[in-house]
Amino acid sequence: MTKSTKWNIYLSGEIHTDWREQIEASVNEAGLPVSFSAPVTHHEASDDCGVAILGAESDKFWHDHKGAQINAIRTRTLIGNADIVVVRFGEKYKQWNAAFDAGYAAALGKPLIIIHQDEHAHALKEVDAAALAVAKTPAQVADILRYVIEGRLDGYTDGSAS
Amino acid sequence: MTKSTKWNIYLSGEIHTDWREQIEASVNEAGLPVSFSAPVTHHEASDDCGVAILGAESDKFWHDHKGAQINAIRTRTLIGNADIVVVRFGEKYKQWNAAFDAGYAAALGKPLIIIHQDEHAHALKEVDAAALAVAKTPAQVADILRYVIEGRLDGYTDGSAS
Amino acid sequence: MTKSTKWNIYLSGEIHTDWREQIEASVNEAGLPVSFSAPVTHHEASDDCGVAILGAESDKFWHDHKGAQINAIRTRTLIGNADIVVVRFGEKYKQWNAAFDAGYAAALGKPLIIIHQDEHAHALKEVDAAALAVAKTPAQVADILRYVIEGRLDGYTDGSAS
Amino acid sequence: MTKSTKWNIYLSGEIHTDWREQIEASVNEAGLPVSFSAPVTHHEASDDCGVAILGAESDKFWHDHKGAQINAIRTRTLIGNADIVVVRFGEKYKQWNAAFDAGYAAALGKPLIIIHQDEHAHALKEVDAAALAVAKTPAQVADILRYVIEGRLDGYTDGSAS
Amino acid sequence: MTKSTKWNIYLSGEIHTDWREQIEASVNEAGLPVSFSAPVTHHEASDDCGVAILGAESDKFWHDHKGAQINAIRTRTLIGNADIVVVRFGEKYKQWNAAFDAGYAAALGKPLIIIHQDEHAHALKEVDAAALAVAKTPAQVADILRYVIEGRLDGYTDGSAS
Amino acid sequence: MTKSTKWNIYLSGEIHTDWREQIEASVNEAGLPVSFSAPVTHHEASDDCGVAILGAESDKFWHDHKGAQINAIRTRTLIGNADIVVVRFGEKYKQWNAAFDAGYAAALGKPLIIIHQDEHAHALKEVDAAALAVAKTPAQVADILRYVIEGRLDGYTDGSAS
Amino acid sequence: MTKSTKWNIYLSGEIHTDWREQIEASVNEAGLPVSFSAPVTHHEASDDCGVAILGAESDKFWHDHKGAQINAIRTRTLIGNADIVVVRFGEKYKQWNAAFDAGYAAALGKPLIIIHQDEHAHALKEVDAAALAVAKTPAQVADILRYVIEGRLDGYTDGSAS
Amino acid sequence: MTKSTKWNIYLSGEIHTDWREQIEASVNEAGLPVSFSAPVTHHEASDDCGVAILGAESDKFWHDHKGAQINAIRTRTLIGNADIVVVRFGEKYKQWNAAFDAGYAAALGKPLIIIHQDEHAHALKEVDAAALAVAKTPAQVADILRYVIEGRLDGYTDGSAS
Repeated sequence: MTKSTKWNIYLSGEIHTDWREQIEASVNEAGLPVSFSAPVTHHEASDDCGVAILGAESDKFWHDHKGAQINAIRTRTLIGNADIVVVRFGEKYKQWNAAFDAGYAAALGKPLIIIHQDEHAHALKEVDAAALAVAKTPAQVADILRYVIEGRLDGYTDGSAS
Repeated sequence: MTKSTKWNIYLSGEIHTDWREQIEASVNEAGLPVSFSAPVTHHEASDDCGVAILGAESDKFWHDHKGAQINAIRTRTLIGNADIVVVRFGEKYKQWNAAFDAGYAAALGKPLIIIHQDEHAHALKEVDAAALAVAKTPAQVADILRYVIEGRLDGYTDGSAS
Repeated sequence: MTKSTKWNIYLSGEIHTDWREQIEASVNEAGLPVSFSAPVTHHEASDDCGVAILGAESDKFWHDHKGAQINAIRTRTLIGNADIVVVRFGEKYKQWNAAFDAGYAAALGKPLIIIHQDEHAHALKEVDAAALAVAKTPAQVADILRYVIEGRLDGYTDGSAS
Repeated sequence: MTKSTKWNIYLSGEIHTDWREQIEASVNEAGLPVSFSAPVTHHEASDDCGVAILGAESDKFWHDHKGAQINAIRTRTLIGNADIVVVRFGEKYKQWNAAFDAGYAAALGKPLIIIHQDEHAHALKEVDAAALAVAKTPAQVADILRYVIEGRLDGYTDGSAS
Repeated sequence: MTKSTKWNIYLSGEIHTDWREQIEASVNEAGLPVSFSAPVTHHEASDDCGVAILGAESDKFWHDHKGAQINAIRTRTLIGNADIVVVRFGEKYKQWNAAFDAGYAAALGKPLIIIHQDEHAHALKEVDAAALAVAKTPAQVADILRYVIEGRLDGYTDGSAS
Repeated sequence: MTKSTKWNIYLSGEIHTDWREQIEASVNEAGLPVSFSAPVTHHEASDDCGVAILGAESDKFWHDHKGAQINAIRTRTLIGNADIVVVRFGEKYKQWNAAFDAGYAAALGKPLIIIHQDEHAHALKEVDAAALAVAKTPAQVADILRYVIEGRLDGYTDGSAS
Repeated sequence: MTKSTKWNIYLSGEIHTDWREQIEASVNEAGLPVSFSAPVTHHEASDDCGVAILGAESDKFWHDHKGAQINAIRTRTLIGNADIVVVRFGEKYKQWNAAFDAGYAAALGKPLIIIHQDEHAHALKEVDAAALAVAKTPAQVADILRYVIEGRLDGYTDGSAS
Repeated sequence: MTKSTKWNIYLSGEIHTDWREQIEASVNEAGLPVSFSAPVTHHEASDDCGVAILGAESDKFWHDHKGAQINAIRTRTLIGNADIVVVRFGEKYKQWNAAFDAGYAAALGKPLIIIHQDEHAHALKEVDAAALAVAKTPAQVADILRYVIEGRLDGYTDGSAS
């Protein structure tokens, strides 16, 4: 039966800006019952965790493989436990892991929110087609969470003129 | 293993009368371990949430689409977490979203309670055929919850003559 | 492993026009490997099948119930076996069973194609939001099937100027 | 019980070289009981199918969206029916749909074979970590299929010296 | 995609009358695309199969256990592959295996048709409550199958007066 | 991730003796982290709940049906949430609902413990064949729970001679 | 709906004796509608397939890993498609892959038949506890298949004295 | 929605060394939000629990069977509730139950961590191929958990030179 009323939000994708912190700050300010999770965002740790813990590899492919598999223990578990998955595509890099996470979450039936700038809209159209919302800013994601979880919408539910 | 003993009840459908409040009041008075959830019942917010948050659309279809998809983040998550889904069909409007929710819940194997007046019985026969109870009043739903969750039935379990 | 390459298409909803025949004719003409299924479209048989087979009921509610449950044996099985579910909303009646089928198919993860006229767009926005295509005519559905199944698109794959 | 002994292989990803034809030619030459499927590989048809069938959109985002959703009817159905999913990453473009397909297939538990050149190994490490084989050429994929489906391996099962 | 259009019907329960043959005869006469399956109905073989094949047991409990588990290989597989499960309760014996099969099929979401006489209605009410049809005769089951599979209903779809 | 460490035990079947109370008393004395649930065991309330809440029926079949469906809201939800399902078959009555619950739980993959006397062993062999333990007394069930949940076994883990 | 009436039998485990051929010969002689599958039983091919196809590895661990993952494409697909999984434990080696397959099949709900000699009974008790039959010889497995699939049991269904 | 942020870790396999205690000590020292579970590790209790509770068996096979099935109530429930499954293979014995658990967990999609010494690498290659990490020591497992759950990696996230 009832689990707690907290919503699990998984924040996937781009790790070089503070978009996660922006969403979390807005959500906490709004007092929403939300628990956030994310991949390990320390780039070097994420790359090297496999060999750092389990021993060095002479072949770069297996160096990467050991790390990526340990990261998968974290990411697949957290995505599997998420109520909503948010994926941000940044301006640089291939970001195939972000698109992989989006596909993984879609197949699990998780509601998807995608964040990207207009310039990537065409390249991301298949990903967007699987999403329930396509946003451009962290603030919009925070607004969606506030509306989805508590039904609050500025200019409407606060009694201001619509 | 055990999750808490609270029951999650999702209250879908008609949003222009206070039937949700009636059920909640009766259930709270009875002290049942129940947590209620529902779609956003503020009609204008529900219609406009997409464009209000993500930006205006010149085409009404996409205006509606953006809002309906954001509402789906909420409704599908809450139905997926519900132990029991209650759907009320009112006297007016097409209410296709209510029937959609009933079908969605049925396919997930959620126990369904439908509320409607006799005049709609024939039109709702396929929906009723998927339900485990068809009620006419919020009070009946509250009685069902009291019986289902705590086994209490007036005139029986209270020791009064049957 | 491989099942045959036929696609199962379930055609749900409105039963008073020949939209199913139109789609089937176009699809057959195109030679697509498709097998269609649908609810029983004989209105009176659909209403009375329960009592006709299992015995009369004095109460109209149970008359309807017995029939609706027998119809459910057919419809839920066929929707469960469908690769694509098409639901048409007509101009008249409540058509709650159509919306129920759409919700049922959505929860099973079936790709949904909805057909309706513009006038119903707002009332159907939650249903449309769960669909992968919203069409207005049977011809459009046939074109979608031709494209989806065989990748043929007039003006493109036939080498005509785009 | 038993379905036929044909294996369904879905070939996702890069559409500008003839890698699919190479695999199919090798597999057919080997006489394997295999049925191949793929997304629509006609680039313009894939981009425009939505508006060509369902009507023009003034906003490029919705133009893309309608097409991508129709393509999803095909791709998700075929991936869902696949026994093995092969995804090729080419040298150019973002190819987020390829990574999305890989994530989608992984979450469904489909065995994944990834094809890419060494230069992309680091960027694809999370995708590779979900795969059961990482190949560089179509010929290697054909060899894997021959081994997996019929147990034939050159230099071993043909009796030549190992 | 499409599997053949044959329907699998599993006939569970009472094994001392010819009700299965009656249904099969009617269904074959009607030319329905149906494949029937059932438990092993040779009573002694069903009781002794375990020890006959795998060796005698001195303890009657394990004698029964070995047989019941081998029977389960057959029955669970066939129920799992059934489109419709029919369970007949006869006039004698405990028939707990019939009720077990009904519960098993219900949890798998299989459409259930129950056959029993009126005298058992009260004792079977929980089982009936999970069924989509409750019949009294094999002929009624055959009529349901004819209606469900081909939409034919005497007095309606044959053009006779209703 | 982790839910609490409480185990949900559903106690199905016979309602005329105090076997549930015996198990609960032993388990509470042992201090196990267990939460018990069960069907409504007030016989008359269980029979009449449908008509008492939703209105009288002139036909006894529908009287029973309405009650049995409301009871199913409770029983299917609680079985679905159970970690272990215990089913006791008593000496009297058909008890088809007990066997139905056992089949239902088996299909959901729930570990089953069956309680019955030797005289019913042959008739219950198919049910026993799906169980992980077949006990004769409530005390044995309590001992199983104590062992399964905390690893305690008299004469072994308490350091007494084995 | 109905798939063909062939049963898929996966034969896992020991690869150094001709037990698979014995079962197949008996089953073919009996004319059962059965399709057999198995891992690649050419020991060296199975060990080296990864490096033979995808390139040599200097580290033995990755040599093994590449091969084992390619073998997994075959074995997991075939187990997933099996109606019955038979696992034979031989007299030598650790045979952890056999036990792994048994656990894998058990979690998928596949009916399990285990073959081993008495000397391994204690070490295999957890594996046997998940099986529906524990045999000692290939002939017994063939007899089980003949009984399960066609209901034939020597001395019973052939009319000979029991 | 959100369950607590504790991670359930199931520790399967070898029971004759203190590897579980080593992992738990390291994890507790690190203050991770983790809950551990395991099979009953008292060897004699595990062997005899069936007969000790449910009555003696003259046949050793059934003695073992009753115990193994009661142990399965515990182990399958705990594996089913685990976020991560760790399986240690020791130096002695067949340890088929460890490999069975690994296969069982793999089929449920649980992230697997395997612990074994190099000498068993070849024999365990199929098991390792299903794992996301292969460790040699309990300390490595503790490090993986610390990284996976909290993103901490010595020499990286603690700010020391990398």
